[in-house]
Order: sequence, then C-alpha cells, then structure tokens
Amino acid sequence: MTTTANPAADIGVIGLAVMGRNLALNLADHGFRVAVHNRSAARISELLTAEPTKNLIGCPTIAEFVAGLKSPRVCLMMVQAGAAVDGQIAQLLPLLAAGDIVIDGGNSLWEDSNRRTTELAARGIHFIGMGVSGGEEGARYGPALMPAGSTAAWPQVRKMFQAIAAKVDGEPCCQWIGDAGAGHYVKMVHNGIEYGDMQLISEAYQLLRDGLGLGPDELAATFRGWNSGPLSSYLIEITADILGVRNADGTLFIDHILDSSGQKGTGKWTAINAVELGVPLTLIAEAVSSRFLSSLKNERSAAAPLLSAALTPFAVEDRDAMVEAVEAALYCSKMVSYAQGFMLLRAAAKNYGWHLAFGDIALIWRGGCIIRSRFLDKIKAAYTRKPALDSLLVDEFFAAEFARFTAGWRHAVSFGVARGIPLPAFTAALSFFDGYRSARLPANLLQAQRDYFGAHTYQRVDDATGKHYHFEWNGSRTEHAIDG
Amino acid sequence: MTTTANPAADIGVIGLAVMGRNLALNLADHGFRVAVHNRSAARISELLTAEPTKNLIGCPTIAEFVAGLKSPRVCLMMVQAGAAVDGQIAQLLPLLAAGDIVIDGGNSLWEDSNRRTTELAARGIHFIGMGVSGGEEGARYGPALMPAGSTAAWPQVRKMFQAIAAKVDGEPCCQWIGDAGAGHYVKMVHNGIEYGDMQLISEAYQLLRDGLGLGPDELAATFRGWNSGPLSSYLIEITADILGVRNADGTLFIDHILDSSGQKGTGKWTAINAVELGVPLTLIAEAVSSRFLSSLKNERSAAAPLLSAALTPFAVEDRDAMVEAVEAALYCSKMVSYAQGFMLLRAAAKNYGWHLAFGDIALIWRGGCIIRSRFLDKIKAAYTRKPALDSLLVDEFFAAEFARFTAGWRHAVSFGVARGIPLPAFTAALSFFDGYRSARLPANLLQAQRDYFGAHTYQRVDDATGKHYHFEWNGSRTEHAIDG
Repeated sequence: MTTTANPAADIGVIGLAVMGRNLALNLADHGFRVAVHNRSAARISELLTAEPTKNLIGCPTIAEFVAGLKSPRVCLMMVQAGAAVDGQIAQLLPLLAAGDIVIDGGNSLWEDSNRRTTELAARGIHFIGMGVSGGEEGARYGPALMPAGSTAAWPQVRKMFQAIAAKVDGEPCCQWIGDAGAGHYVKMVHNGIEYGDMQLISEAYQLLRDGLGLGPDELAATFRGWNSGPLSSYLIEITADILGVRNADGTLFIDHILDSSGQKGTGKWTAINAVELGVPLTLIAEAVSSRFLSSLKNERSAAAPLLSAALTPFAVEDRDAMVEAVEAALYCSKMVSYAQGFMLLRAAAKNYGWHLAFGDIALIWRGGCIIRSRFLDKIKAAYTRKPALDSLLVDEFFAAEFARFTAGWRHAVSFGVARGIPLPAFTAALSFFDGYRSARLPANLLQAQRDYFGAHTYQRVDDATGKHYHFEWNGSRTEHAIDG
Repeated sequence: MTTTANPAADIGVIGLAVMGRNLALNLADHGFRVAVHNRSAARISELLTAEPTKNLIGCPTIAEFVAGLKSPRVCLMMVQAGAAVDGQIAQLLPLLAAGDIVIDGGNSLWEDSNRRTTELAARGIHFIGMGVSGGEEGARYGPALMPAGSTAAWPQVRKMFQAIAAKVDGEPCCQWIGDAGAGHYVKMVHNGIEYGDMQLISEAYQLLRDGLGLGPDELAATFRGWNSGPLSSYLIEITADILGVRNADGTLFIDHILDSSGQKGTGKWTAINAVELGVPLTLIAEAVSSRFLSSLKNERSAAAPLLSAALTPFAVEDRDAMVEAVEAALYCSKMVSYAQGFMLLRAAAKNYGWHLAFGDIALIWRGGCIIRSRFLDKIKAAYTRKPALDSLLVDEFFAAEFARFTAGWRHAVSFGVARGIPLPAFTAALSFFDGYRSARLPANLLQAQRDYFGAHTYQRVDDATGKHYHFEWNGSRTEHAIDG
C-alpha cells in the first residue's frame, strides 16, 4: 500500500464502494492525485491491487488521509446517505482547517445538505452537496454532476469536476447549481423524472404487447426504431437491449422477472415535496404509486379473477398507425412530465430562494445521467429563447409538437382504456395537458360546494380586486362581499 | 353574564368561533351544562345574549372556567390548529388535576395529537384528539365525531358525545377510534376522501356540460336524479342545489365564481402521508393536484389559445346513454377512491400500531359529515362480511357493481379523452382499477431497467424464496444469484 508523508493529493475520496471507487479512478485517469480511504482498509488494498496507478494514494487511517491532501483540502465523501454522512463529517472536522472543502456526493436529502452547509460554514469549512448521476458506468467514465452549497468553494474544485464529468458537444455536464442543498434537490428531481420516464416506457411496452400483440422481435425493433426519433435516449436504448435478451425458446428473458418494483426513496421525496410546494407533479406521483401497486403482487393476483373487465370493442384497423400512436403518447406524456418537473424546480427556486438556471440544468442532464437524451437540447433551447418561461408546454417548439402528436396520444389512450390496460402516467399527463390548456375549469363548482357547506367563500371572475364573497345557499339566496 | 361559584358544568368549551359555539349549543340542547370561555370576552356575552339558555355558563377568565367544571373536568378546545392548541394547553395545565380530560376538537395534524397524548399523560391528564366533521350545521345539530387518545377517558365522555352526534338508523356517528392521534388521522383521511368526491363531481359536471352540452335545467335535474340512486349523498344533493341557483337571465349563478380553488391543508397531508406509507392513493392525489392547477388561472388562460387540441371525432349516438355512462364513471371512480382510502387506513393501522375498526369508521361517516351517503352502508356491510378484507374492490358487492358499470365508465372516459376534457380523477381511478386487477404488470421491465443501469437486482417469478438476481446485460449476458 502506498502512503506518503508529504501532502500530495489534489482531492481525497472517502468510501470505496462502487460509486466512490469509480469516481476516484475517473479522477486519477484525468491526472489528479487522489487520496483514497475506506472504513475497512481491505477495500483500499483491493482497489490499489486491481487498479495500479501512481495517482491513487491509499490512506488506511483518516489522519493519514487528511495529512495527504494539499491545502485547501478537498474531501469527497461517497458514503451512505443519512447518519453515515454526519458521522463522517464529525470524524473529519477536528482534522480540518478553515477554508477546507467537504463534499457529499451521495444521494442525500437536500434538506440535510441545507443544514450541513450552515453547520460547516459556522466552523469555517466549505460544504458542497453534489448530486451524482449515471450509475457505475457514469461515475467511472463521465457522470452528470450537480454541485451546490458554499459558492466560494466552486472555483477551487470546478476544474476537477468539469474534467471528469460527461461531455456533450464539448460542454461538461457539470455546472454550479446554487446555494445550500440545491444540488441534491436538482438530483432528486432528476430521479423523479427518471421514475416517470421508466413508467412511461413500461406503459408503452404493455400497450404494444398486450394491446397490439407485438412479439419479442417486433417489440425490440420498435424500441430500437424509436431510439432514432425524438424519443432517442439512454432509457429507450437499454429497453431495446433488454427486449433483445431471449430465453432458449425465443421468449423474452424478462418474463422470468418478478413484476414488483423497488425504490430507494428519491421518487417518494420528489412526490412529497411537490405536494408541499403546491405543484401538480401528477405524472411522477403516478409513477411512484405504480411502484407501490406493483409491490402488492399477491393482492393483484387474487383480484384478477374477481374483477375481469367488461371490455368495449376497439377495432385497430391499422396496426402500424397504432404503434405510431403509442409513440406519440409516450412522447407527449414525456413532454408533460418534464414540464411538470421544471414547474417544480421553478417553485423550489422561488420558495427556497435559489437562483436556478433552468437551461443549465437541462444541459447537465443531456449526458452522463440516466435520463440523458437529445430531448433535453430542446428544453435548453426553450429556456434560451425565454429564461422566464412559465411552462415548457407553451414554448413554441413544444406547442408545435403537441399540435402534431396529440391526436395519436388520445387514440392510444382510448385504446388502452377500452382494452383494460392500466395507463396511469399516460392519462395523468393527458389530464394535466387538457387542464393546463383550459382557461376555465370546473373549480368554480368546487368553490361553490366549499362555500355551501363550510362558508369558505369564493372570488368572482368579474372582480379583479380579489375580494371574497359568500352566498346564502340555503337561506336568503343572496350574496355578500366579505370585508377584508 | 352568568357565572357560578359552584362547579356545575358537565363540560367546558374554549373558543367560541362558529364550530365551538355550535357544539356548545348542541351540548346545551341535550341537557348538558356547558361552561363557555373565549379569549375575547365579548364573544361570550354575544353568545349568551343571542342564545339564552340556563345550560350555558359564561366564564370570562380561564380560572373561572376551570373552577366551573365538575370533576374530572372535561375541557373541549375549539381553537385554531397549531400553536394555539399548545398555547391553550399550557394555560390550562396549571389549573387542572390528575384525571382531568383535555379534548382538542380542531383540525389538528394527527402527529401533534400523538405528541400531546404522550405529553399530557406524563402529567396525569387524559388527552383526546377528536375529529369533528359536518361544518357549522353538523356541529349545531349533529356532527360526525372521531375521538381517540387516552382510552381511559372514553367512558367518561362517551355519553355526551354520542348524544350530540348525528344518528343514522338510531346509531350515533361517534365511536372511539383508538390510541393517540388516530382520531385526527381518520378525520384527515375523511377530508382527503372529501377532496376526491368533490373532484369527481366536478369532472362529471364538466363532461355533462362541455361534452354533452346539457343546459342549466338538465344539469340540475341530472344531479337531482343521481341523488336518488347509488350516488345519493350530501355532496350530490348540494350540487343539485347549487346548479339550481340562476342569474336573472337563467344562466348558472356559478358562472360568476372564479375557478381557482383553495384548500386548508388536510388534503395535502393525506396525499403526503400516503406516499410516506407507500400506499397508491392516486385519486385523492389527483384531486389535490387539480386544486393546485386550478389556482394557476393566469397561466391557464395564457396557455389556452396556444394549445388548442387536435380532437378526434367521437359520435354520441344516444345522449341519455352517455349521461348514464357519466354516472357509471362517477360511481366506479368513487368506489376506487374509497377502496384507496381504506387501504391507507389499513396501512396506518399497521404502521402506527392502531386497532382501527374499518366498519365502525364507515358507520361514523354515514351521517353528520360532508361525505355522508348511503354508499357507506355498503362499506360497513363489506367489513362485516370480512373484517380483514384486503380491498373493498374484491368484496362481493363492489365486484358485482364493477361488473355492471365498468363498460359505461370506459365509455365516458374515452368520450372525455376525445373531447379534450380533463378527467384526472376518473382516469386515475380507472388506471388503478385496471392495475389492481392485473396479475401481471410491466414492472418486470422496470426492474430489468434498474438492474441494467444500477445493478439494483430483481427477483424471479419462479423462485418463491425471494432471492435476488443480477443479469450481466452488457457483458456476458449471464444471470447470477446474489448471496444473502
């Protein structure tokens, strides 16, 4: 094991599970000297044996680790989110000096990163909460990085992180996100969008397979075809790969996989935060709930024979046209999902006082991460055209796309509704789209009900002062303005 | 103002806003002597002047209030949820003795009631967190009451609260719910269901009006007709009343009401709690989000001309049949909403260690509260048939109703989808129904994706041990069982 008495490392990585190990190797590849430490020292030797490079410096103790870092010291923690992060910080703090930089690259809750930024600032230490996306492969060869926290620390680490990040058109998928927990927040929303994308692909797959009866080869070919159109993305690409894996008898390999999906929590956080902020993030919420429902495998199996559907006939005259309609449904639903995701970012920026550059966020997500796609270029372009855009839905590009594809979207949804195929995300997206483009919603009836049973009052369409009124529904049938 | 030196009151009410005042009068009507106190004493005089009865005892100070109560003292707080409740408790505590009973009848967060039960128990005081539903009218003449907390206190207050509660078939809409915050929890879920019911009615109304072109008289008559069928309920009844109110020119009065709906928070709490517990409460979540979307009135108005829909033709050959289809959609969606609500109650009982009697909860909600309906009798009957029912959807009555009405439900949804009418709750319900009755969902594809990009592993349908597997999607294309 290599150790050194002279501070020689540009950065240190604590935690050598797959993400930490791969980020360390990525940094080493780019010419940075990296001190590496792990609670169990065996992992350090394993890494140095497996990947011999002069740029990795093994540090069996935390004291050696800190001593091995150039000043100001840059410590990147890749440990499990939660208490382990606070424990690691507590262990580091006595060994650090003012101006040193502590970075948390785990999937931490953004509120914890808010707190840690403040706590460490009080000790003169810079804290960065950095979202890291791209899985093992991304960490090793080019992740998307979403750093935020102590802005003063950014110039000192920028070069390193932009060097190891994914590049698209020469631009690094790593930009400073903003204050405090904004980086982990943006990573959380990224994960929520990822939940949505995966659910949308699952619904398209089920429509094609159970609705249209496409066989394994047709399914794989369809997704491969979609990957050269506007849906082109990493998740569509791997779906085609997955559908290409067959059993010996030619059936799909995934038919052996249990249809009960797990989750790590970031989707739930996103859904909860949206409700807290009053943002209708309905597609991601449905995607999260779909995973809940999938996990009730025994209940579903018991219910299936009891609730056989009375299905209305739905003639598919042109099978190819219906495949195109499913593609339109997936594309339109995806546009709604990203519009909702950026609505959430806008609300977060406003509520938490962050200056989020929406176009930059789209740029970061173009490469390295799970939701990477050419589609994100269109979002970047929309925010370049109008940085204060109310919603992606009303951007000229997206509005034109909806005009082209909504007929197919509606057709595919009606097909699934008739065939009894669950389309929670496709329909949530369509309802949102139709609601968002409604100058008038039936919420006036709802306000009347609230005023009727609870005297909750209402406003009038013809009174721009916003004054509240109450109507005596049961008694005099007269209206009263409520004094301010 | 009447005061008394001898403890004479059976119960005391603190806080004389409309709910407190009406509960006090309701208690007085039933022969209980009620001490009444309010922070501003003017309200006390006003009440005693407006409603002269020997059973109300005005107490200008909190000391007189406590001195006026028989032992053990029963103090019902009807003050604003939140800090005001803690403040009131702090004011009462020094004046109370062990065995006294403090009741919070506000719309408190159930977690606060958990905490208060424990805090007061440590001082020897019984705490009851009591959900109260029914609005002003219910409080005055018969609310639904959902008390929980210190079980030892229940026999001491049972007679009073069951006396003033609404009665259905001679049974009081007031039963002991369980430990700690369970009463406020059940009230929260009641409110969530109320959000869902109101949203469903709004969607039916919009389908009838914008889709089918029903005029004011037809709209009012349709809802009045529905109120004598399986949808019979307070909310359908008041909707018919509301649609009966007209402007001088015969148009609907509600056309003057701004379509931007407010909320007090219990719907948001319900939606958030469901995500925390992993329950797919999708319909209520959509109802809450619909209110968020309605409040974006300016954005919607700006988007409307930019996103005019490409609508597919949908011929309605039989208008009456489509009205029936809309009724079927409303009824089926309502069954799903209550099934989801009771799934949440089941998850809460399990997670929080409460022994919730689901049938009793349905009984309580039959009268007095906003969601009261004959429909709740069917839920009570289902839980009587099988107290450990997995889901209302698989109860014999509900399963048979779905078999009768799903064709109409699908027809109405397809109609709205084609016409561009947003149906977030109708479609969320249908997607859930179709998902719940799917023995097989595409979550296997989703698990394959997670295993592909993150090595998250999966289980196999043919391995009941629940062992996890990983497949080398990119490399060897072989499967490995993961050790322990």
